[in-house]
Amino acid sequence: LKRSAAILGCAGYSGQETLDRVLAHPGLDVLALGSNSLAGQSAAALDPRLNGSLPAFVANDEAAASGAEVLFLCLENEAAATFVPPADTVVVDLSGAHRLVDAELARGWYGTAPGPWSYGLPELFPADGLLIANPGCYATAALLALAPLAHVANGPVVVDGKSGVSGAGRTLKQSSHAGSVLENVSPYAVGEHRHAPEIAQQLGFPICFVPHLLPVRRGLLATCYLHTDADVRSLLEETYAGSAVVRVLPEGVTPELARVQSTDAAEIGVFTDAATGTAIVICAIDNLGKGAAGQAVQNANLALGLDETAGLRLTGVLV
Amino acid sequence: LKRSAAILGCAGYSGQETLDRVLAHPGLDVLALGSNSLAGQSAAALDPRLNGSLPAFVANDEAAASGAEVLFLCLENEAAATFVPPADTVVVDLSGAHRLVDAELARGWYGTAPGPWSYGLPELFPADGLLIANPGCYATAALLALAPLAHVANGPVVVDGKSGVSGAGRTLKQSSHAGSVLENVSPYAVGEHRHAPEIAQQLGFPICFVPHLLPVRRGLLATCYLHTDADVRSLLEETYAGSAVVRVLPEGVTPELARVQSTDAAEIGVFTDAATGTAIVICAIDNLGKGAAGQAVQNANLALGLDETAGLRLTGVLV
Amino acid sequence: LKRSAAILGCAGYSGQETLDRVLAHPGLDVLALGSNSLAGQSAAALDPRLNGSLPAFVANDEAAASGAEVLFLCLENEAAATFVPPADTVVVDLSGAHRLVDAELARGWYGTAPGPWSYGLPELFPADGLLIANPGCYATAALLALAPLAHVANGPVVVDGKSGVSGAGRTLKQSSHAGSVLENVSPYAVGEHRHAPEIAQQLGFPICFVPHLLPVRRGLLATCYLHTDADVRSLLEETYAGSAVVRVLPEGVTPELARVQSTDAAEIGVFTDAATGTAIVICAIDNLGKGAAGQAVQNANLALGLDETAGLRLTGVLV
Amino acid sequence: LKRSAAILGCAGYSGQETLDRVLAHPGLDVLALGSNSLAGQSAAALDPRLNGSLPAFVANDEAAASGAEVLFLCLENEAAATFVPPADTVVVDLSGAHRLVDAELARGWYGTAPGPWSYGLPELFPADGLLIANPGCYATAALLALAPLAHVANGPVVVDGKSGVSGAGRTLKQSSHAGSVLENVSPYAVGEHRHAPEIAQQLGFPICFVPHLLPVRRGLLATCYLHTDADVRSLLEETYAGSAVVRVLPEGVTPELARVQSTDAAEIGVFTDAATGTAIVICAIDNLGKGAAGQAVQNANLALGLDETAGLRLTGVLV
Repeated sequence: LKRSAAILGCAGYSGQETLDRVLAHPGLDVLALGSNSLAGQSAAALDPRLNGSLPAFVANDEAAASGAEVLFLCLENEAAATFVPPADTVVVDLSGAHRLVDAELARGWYGTAPGPWSYGLPELFPADGLLIANPGCYATAALLALAPLAHVANGPVVVDGKSGVSGAGRTLKQSSHAGSVLENVSPYAVGEHRHAPEIAQQLGFPICFVPHLLPVRRGLLATCYLHTDADVRSLLEETYAGSAVVRVLPEGVTPELARVQSTDAAEIGVFTDAATGTAIVICAIDNLGKGAAGQAVQNANLALGLDETAGLRLTGVLV
Repeated sequence: LKRSAAILGCAGYSGQETLDRVLAHPGLDVLALGSNSLAGQSAAALDPRLNGSLPAFVANDEAAASGAEVLFLCLENEAAATFVPPADTVVVDLSGAHRLVDAELARGWYGTAPGPWSYGLPELFPADGLLIANPGCYATAALLALAPLAHVANGPVVVDGKSGVSGAGRTLKQSSHAGSVLENVSPYAVGEHRHAPEIAQQLGFPICFVPHLLPVRRGLLATCYLHTDADVRSLLEETYAGSAVVRVLPEGVTPELARVQSTDAAEIGVFTDAATGTAIVICAIDNLGKGAAGQAVQNANLALGLDETAGLRLTGVLV
Repeated sequence: LKRSAAILGCAGYSGQETLDRVLAHPGLDVLALGSNSLAGQSAAALDPRLNGSLPAFVANDEAAASGAEVLFLCLENEAAATFVPPADTVVVDLSGAHRLVDAELARGWYGTAPGPWSYGLPELFPADGLLIANPGCYATAALLALAPLAHVANGPVVVDGKSGVSGAGRTLKQSSHAGSVLENVSPYAVGEHRHAPEIAQQLGFPICFVPHLLPVRRGLLATCYLHTDADVRSLLEETYAGSAVVRVLPEGVTPELARVQSTDAAEIGVFTDAATGTAIVICAIDNLGKGAAGQAVQNANLALGLDETAGLRLTGVLV
Repeated sequence: LKRSAAILGCAGYSGQETLDRVLAHPGLDVLALGSNSLAGQSAAALDPRLNGSLPAFVANDEAAASGAEVLFLCLENEAAATFVPPADTVVVDLSGAHRLVDAELARGWYGTAPGPWSYGLPELFPADGLLIANPGCYATAALLALAPLAHVANGPVVVDGKSGVSGAGRTLKQSSHAGSVLENVSPYAVGEHRHAPEIAQQLGFPICFVPHLLPVRRGLLATCYLHTDADVRSLLEETYAGSAVVRVLPEGVTPELARVQSTDAAEIGVFTDAATGTAIVICAIDNLGKGAAGQAVQNANLALGLDETAGLRLTGVLV
């Protein structure tokens, strides 16, 4: 017996990717497709491959009230912030609205008040309860690299993030215009990105974070720098020893966007700087996969008692 | 009266770019074009726009013996290492062969022994003498960002470098194959790149350096992280106050590859991390411009007593 | 004595590129910078490199009334259509509003009525009068390739166009979003693009035209297919024999975006299909150079009696 | 019971993609992995995700002699040309060596003599026998667009092809260097590409074909121009009515590389030029999917009596 799912905000990148995974999921059925911009149109309005077996788009409110056992909120922060979850329903919020638990930070960064939501990064911080705040893409990569090392880090930690343009969503803005992106790499929100407090919250200490926009469609790299006396490789390998999602790469192997793009897997490379002894941990994910929709489905699987990796893309394109 | 120039290694990217600047230079004339692969062919073999007014290609040895007043060595490290400079001639070596002054480091990284060469980064470390070692592209960007701050830095310094593929030269290798570069960003030589000891040599202390290959043709960004109590912006603005080449950007403005691509200018953005107080200094250059050919011509101008910026591209494409 | 110029619509790509050329022009001075979105701000609002020697931005109407001897209209079609030119002033309209001379076509494609404007493609159709309609980017490339052959073409002609994303302007739209452009090539307005009637008007017969959007920032290629018994190469070489702008490439050499990007030059390659005898003429331009701003300045030069190529970029980046 | 497969030439793009599909195939098991460059190394040498359940690489000859029931030849044309197929074995040759049946053309283009190989493009020209010549990538797209219309075409046909760089293989060459590919589009082998005689052979008449190299990793578009009095849309829709692989798009919808990349599906868009009545048929495929490995597995499935689409990727990434 399949469980019923509704997706709110289907027209955006994370909505579309979540739909893609739900369609491939052996234990989930699409009950409602929510999109305020596409409401009233058939599923094929989103993609000509989606045929009549799917329900037509409805307004997000209607999708929320569909009675689905799991809701995926793929909404802007503002819309997610004011969303009232139905009772007894698993809700995975892919926005940032419910990630920060400190009242001042939540208000400052998202205009929200902390509520009964639980942060859910399955390998490190499994959610607890029905209302799950899905981590940010940069935060996911940085935390996969750093959380197993948080207790052994000495002194300042730097996270240099690089993301493909889909991380900024489908919304039109000058910085996502191809004329701004092609043949370019743009640092942005330098030293003041809202994923920094999210990373700090989960690590227990602040880090210095600078994101950069890459001229690639999808994929994200977090190059993390820290100082420690501990055996970084061992700590990471132990943490992810049984994981089907996170791979610690062999010595000397660097992560490749190409190996994680369009998948829900993560790759971690471990290095030591020859001159300064700095530990360098590099994590690659697909910002729309492990960084959004893949992790959302993983969180939903755990909350619904399904196989953790059902519907996920864990192998894939080799080239 | 124009001075005569010869370029050795014209067929590579830095050779071609140097030629481009010499052709536009009001005080230099091309006396010889050296290229072992193109020797015997007309200049048009390199580019159909180069017509009969230029000499045909000759072997690099022949170009070196042409009697030109300035030689630009655009050769592989190995060929530059064994090059015997003619007497009384300005020689600018764009390779890495003569950059390191420590005997062990020079031998270890380049298989060379230190000689009578002088490191030349005009704004910070003007060369002294006729034999000039032109800085590496990453080193140029990192030093422009960090050298004015070297005396006030506390603790570890991180340089996260990102470069377009032309920085790796025209030589064929798998990592420069478009199938490896497109839709990708690749960390490489993690913690063990040869520009790290070059940066350290000029700063006086080691730094942690990780280069990343970007899917762009040209352009380079160095995102530098350091801790200091000093006023970073003031120190940088003072250093480059009179420079026509290096621009310190106004507060809040980030460097853009698009504004330095195909130019010999550099841009520096200055930020402070909100959470940790880390100083973030970001420098953008064109790896083939200020990072190679532009700086080589700038060095040659100074050595020949010409206007420092003659032949350089300092304004340019606005889009 | 320099002539005074005003640019209307400076904030768009073609406005910015026109400004770039006017700044480098030995015979033009900037009298007014028009931009309704930037009015009241200093020139540095457009680019931090533009310093105080330039006037601040004013509204487009004010720039039009500045008394400048030449106006460059870099406006949307609608705004250009209703523009009232001042008396005794050279006006170059970079929009499409005044290109079509057939009343029905002008109304159908641009909502305009034909007026006292003259189409100006200097090498083929020099303008006549003060009011000049600057050709479209695709039309420029197609006409450079085909116009010298129009009288010898037999049967149907196909123009397969490929353009970088800056050809679609800086305006935000989903098709210019980097997420739509990267790793993609998109045919659009298939068989119904408004440059098709423009090309037909100048050739004297209709052609089949399909444009494609490329994942490049700038540059345009028109691959043209026609049948003829004439000597295509000779006709093209004769037409452009004295041109500093248009190069007919030697046999076997294909045009390269890289050689025309950021320049105002055009390259034409000439081939014959081995199997069918079809003549294949391929023209490469920079859509913002010869395809817009460069040609606008070239048109202005002719109208003002200046050197035709003053301010143009005709040599450039070799790599 | 699974059938055993061996792949020769695993280290190239088409070999790797074929392996990827065989690994996902419910009816095939990997018996041997051939690669002369990787022989002796474990499967993880190709990709760190390939673990110990796969056999180590062996030389191609050894893989051919492994006794596998189906061999995929992912070799250079020269190596495939001299390959001696084992008896009673399905062999799918992904190279061009056995595609041309005319003795003179086969010798001229590939240096081969026609043999007992059968061209296999399942939807149009299903193979007959155990030895199958897998079509070229451009030929696949052009034939999917044109073959159903061959009997109604009047006069000359133009195929303007555009391909991602993986179509040129992983072999190092200057034209595949990222410095040549980024921010560029390159026509090549203009009017003399070896896929032209292959297309002509299957259509029964010559066509004019110009391929262009795109700055994308994977994906191919064939824009086809022809004249006919027939109802193009109906003919195409009838041909592919029952196909799970080829989709004829609704009126007004253009093919998108993004919808076929990393899949084995094809999309066809149908248009009519407003000015000339030319029929425009545009086919998009992944050059490594339907254009190589996907079609090879499809051919193997038919020859082995398996479900035609087993192991194929027919749905996929929506973004």
